[in-house]
Amino acid sequence: MAVEAYTRLERIFARLNVLDDVLGVLHWDMSTMMPEGGAEARAEQLATLRSLHHDMLTASQVVELLDGAEAERSALNAWQAANLREMRRDWVHAAAVPGDLVDALSRAVSTCEMAWRAARPASDFKAVRPLLEEVLRLVRETAQAKAAKLGTGAYDALLDQYEPGGRSAAIDHVFSDLESFLPTFLQEVVERRRDTGAQPPAGPFPVERQRALAVRLMEVLGFDFRHGRLDTSFHPFCGGTADDVRITTRYDEADFTSSLMGVLHETGHALYDFGLPAEWRRQPVGRARGMSLHESQSLLFEMQACRSREFLEFAAPLMRAAFDGEGAAWDADNLHGVYTRVGPGFIRVDADEVTYPAHVILRYRLEKAMIEGDLQVADLPGAWNEGMGRLLGITPPDDRRGCLQDIHWYDGAWGYFPTYTLGAMTAAQLFDAACRAEPGIPPALGRGDFAPLLGWLRVHVHGKGSLLEVDELLIEATGRPLDAAVFKEHLRRRYLA
Amino acid sequence: MAVEAYTRLERIFARLNVLDDVLGVLHWDMSTMMPEGGAEARAEQLATLRSLHHDMLTASQVVELLDGAEAERSALNAWQAANLREMRRDWVHAAAVPGDLVDALSRAVSTCEMAWRAARPASDFKAVRPLLEEVLRLVRETAQAKAAKLGTGAYDALLDQYEPGGRSAAIDHVFSDLESFLPTFLQEVVERRRDTGAQPPAGPFPVERQRALAVRLMEVLGFDFRHGRLDTSFHPFCGGTADDVRITTRYDEADFTSSLMGVLHETGHALYDFGLPAEWRRQPVGRARGMSLHESQSLLFEMQACRSREFLEFAAPLMRAAFDGEGAAWDADNLHGVYTRVGPGFIRVDADEVTYPAHVILRYRLEKAMIEGDLQVADLPGAWNEGMGRLLGITPPDDRRGCLQDIHWYDGAWGYFPTYTLGAMTAAQLFDAACRAEPGIPPALGRGDFAPLLGWLRVHVHGKGSLLEVDELLIEATGRPLDAAVFKEHLRRRYLA
Repeated sequence: MAVEAYTRLERIFARLNVLDDVLGVLHWDMSTMMPEGGAEARAEQLATLRSLHHDMLTASQVVELLDGAEAERSALNAWQAANLREMRRDWVHAAAVPGDLVDALSRAVSTCEMAWRAARPASDFKAVRPLLEEVLRLVRETAQAKAAKLGTGAYDALLDQYEPGGRSAAIDHVFSDLESFLPTFLQEVVERRRDTGAQPPAGPFPVERQRALAVRLMEVLGFDFRHGRLDTSFHPFCGGTADDVRITTRYDEADFTSSLMGVLHETGHALYDFGLPAEWRRQPVGRARGMSLHESQSLLFEMQACRSREFLEFAAPLMRAAFDGEGAAWDADNLHGVYTRVGPGFIRVDADEVTYPAHVILRYRLEKAMIEGDLQVADLPGAWNEGMGRLLGITPPDDRRGCLQDIHWYDGAWGYFPTYTLGAMTAAQLFDAACRAEPGIPPALGRGDFAPLLGWLRVHVHGKGSLLEVDELLIEATGRPLDAAVFKEHLRRRYLA
Repeated sequence: MAVEAYTRLERIFARLNVLDDVLGVLHWDMSTMMPEGGAEARAEQLATLRSLHHDMLTASQVVELLDGAEAERSALNAWQAANLREMRRDWVHAAAVPGDLVDALSRAVSTCEMAWRAARPASDFKAVRPLLEEVLRLVRETAQAKAAKLGTGAYDALLDQYEPGGRSAAIDHVFSDLESFLPTFLQEVVERRRDTGAQPPAGPFPVERQRALAVRLMEVLGFDFRHGRLDTSFHPFCGGTADDVRITTRYDEADFTSSLMGVLHETGHALYDFGLPAEWRRQPVGRARGMSLHESQSLLFEMQACRSREFLEFAAPLMRAAFDGEGAAWDADNLHGVYTRVGPGFIRVDADEVTYPAHVILRYRLEKAMIEGDLQVADLPGAWNEGMGRLLGITPPDDRRGCLQDIHWYDGAWGYFPTYTLGAMTAAQLFDAACRAEPGIPPALGRGDFAPLLGWLRVHVHGKGSLLEVDELLIEATGRPLDAAVFKEHLRRRYLA
């Protein structure tokens, strides 16, 4: 049987994929290179391309072909069937929302994000508030339209964009579990580790040297600079395209440790992109399998591998050499202490892995409340500060260190936050499975050899693209679905052993 | 009378304009930032966007609306009528060529340009020859298709893409005129100036200091860094979009003078883009009026203004200070001598304004012969070297300094070269008219004050967009059509006075 409709869909989705890639490059440029006066024209470019993408995906021809391809299903192989499932998924999300709304949201987000860039350092929530209100209004409208098509609640419809098949009922369950474990655990850890006295080496650390060290360690992890770059942006990210991965960081001349680990985190994202099957590049099934799995790769490299004692034994002499460091502050022992410090703080991206889930749980509850109409943007700063007090016992002194710190809401990424903590749990579970299968992985990290770890991930995660659903992939790779137990065990072993 | 069809066209062309802008950003990134491994994916992106652009412009709806708008012509104001004329122009060029051919050419050009980047430093013409043959084959096919629609010869159909209304019969006339004037003039100049002994200051000149000086002088000319950037690329260009102009240069640590003047040249291009009416941004009539006029703006700033004795009196102390220079080599007198040296050389972009037309005439004749089938790509190196011997009395020792030096043919830009020399003549004519109208311009340049010059250009050139045809604009601005006499007079005054 010929698969004519399916074959025509492949051609259409290849074109859509190219538009996605172009959006990736434009977004990278906007965050790293673009002069501020280019903002308005760039917003126009992003909105136009998104609207073209939307028009192409929702053209009547596409749904006819999707139905036609369903009729050809018996002739499709497993790869094609999975590809068709992902095409349908894309279409459902796109077709649920009218083009005008897509366009309006894209413009509102571009404007709001640019304003946020100025409002954050000035700690001026009021300046960006009306723009955020407009973004929320359009995001809620989008969520309701998608919920109607997906048969979910409004929040789940947004979550589903980042975490296909993800549902807040399951998240509520896991997050409640963590919330009952973490406060006691945190207290125990803080008390137990009060006397480690780990102190980061004293600076200043010139940006150029920080960058050179970051590049060196990116290469150690397996980053291929023929297919990527490291640049500077306000909010670090991994972008570009799978053949040309652009990661970014920001530098602090007083402390190199945070930027460096941020780079290794983004490198984990990049390695996932690099590892997606090259021959599947232009098809939906060739994409990364959702955001929790993407985050699991960054956190696997950052939290599981690079903050391990083994890796820091290898990396400490490189760090010392990079800055001509002297003294015990540069010993692996102290650096390991620095990189496993635990304590409540205001900033999510600087948080340790024990307190990080509290940051995520706060944002998850706030964004869910805003989407469901139970919290107004005007009340966000207050609700944020109240939540920080309740979850971590601290109150941000200003909105810069409160509700202005993250780009996500201002950039239209609602329903994204929970994937960070799902990712942390997934990372622990995958790393555990990898080390059981290949006991040589931890000692290899001690020699700066990431090949055994990367080899396992290439086979069990990266090389799968979106062939499987998240749960299926995890069961195949680790023998069971996502389970907080391994994450908790990891925390106990690292912080209480 | 309602102008419904016309109004709908404005919306369509605004979208097309955004795609042009996106292509500008992607092209800039490819030349300045992209790692080499991204080349294949980028070629795909450029080809897909060009093909989308082509599809949108040649959709049956567009030609129906163009015909509909013609019927509304009596209700259009002059601006709208000019806009409609430019829309029709775009459509004729696009509709003449089948989408498959546009796509194939775009891919061939991307591949060829990347290969040229490696072949040029290696002086390896053979490595790029088959790719150039493929580009030529597709360019000829394109030219023939357009010629049939335009009622011109094949070469003129290509020329018309860059110089709307330009015809090779007119160019042949002007170029023959120059060819009969220049050899004798060149000989006279070389003899007369044999003893000036101007020598560029001795280096090395660190790249960072060169860049800082370039930025300083760009600001003096009027470049607005809130709306643009200066970066490094293999072949300098002015790109990006009118709201976000990206110019590039390349640095030579042994000699700052050439890169610096190159930057001021590209700044002239940028100032034209900045000066296009902001409220016409997204419409065809708001674009720059063809390539000879664009080049006239870069050459007006470079050749007429910045190599003038007045400006160099102002700039010499800044150059000295930038490099902590000492001695007479940094005097305005010597620097003026350096910046007005004349003599045959291999490289077009380093050529002085007296020998430059010979470079252009050579390329014009070679590309015309290749398009017309009278010269094969395999015979290009020989024909190039023979022509250099005949026109300038020198023979390139290798293809790096011969037919591999320019990006144009490898990048698909056939029919472009003559606009450089048309631009040089236009620059002389416009600068002459500006100084007659505003005699304060030359003394202002001596104070580093470009406002009077820029003010005149804003009114008479930049602010016109594509409202007028090239000839009309020149007659309005200078009182007569393009005329080599002013250019010759400029050369005589500068080099023989």
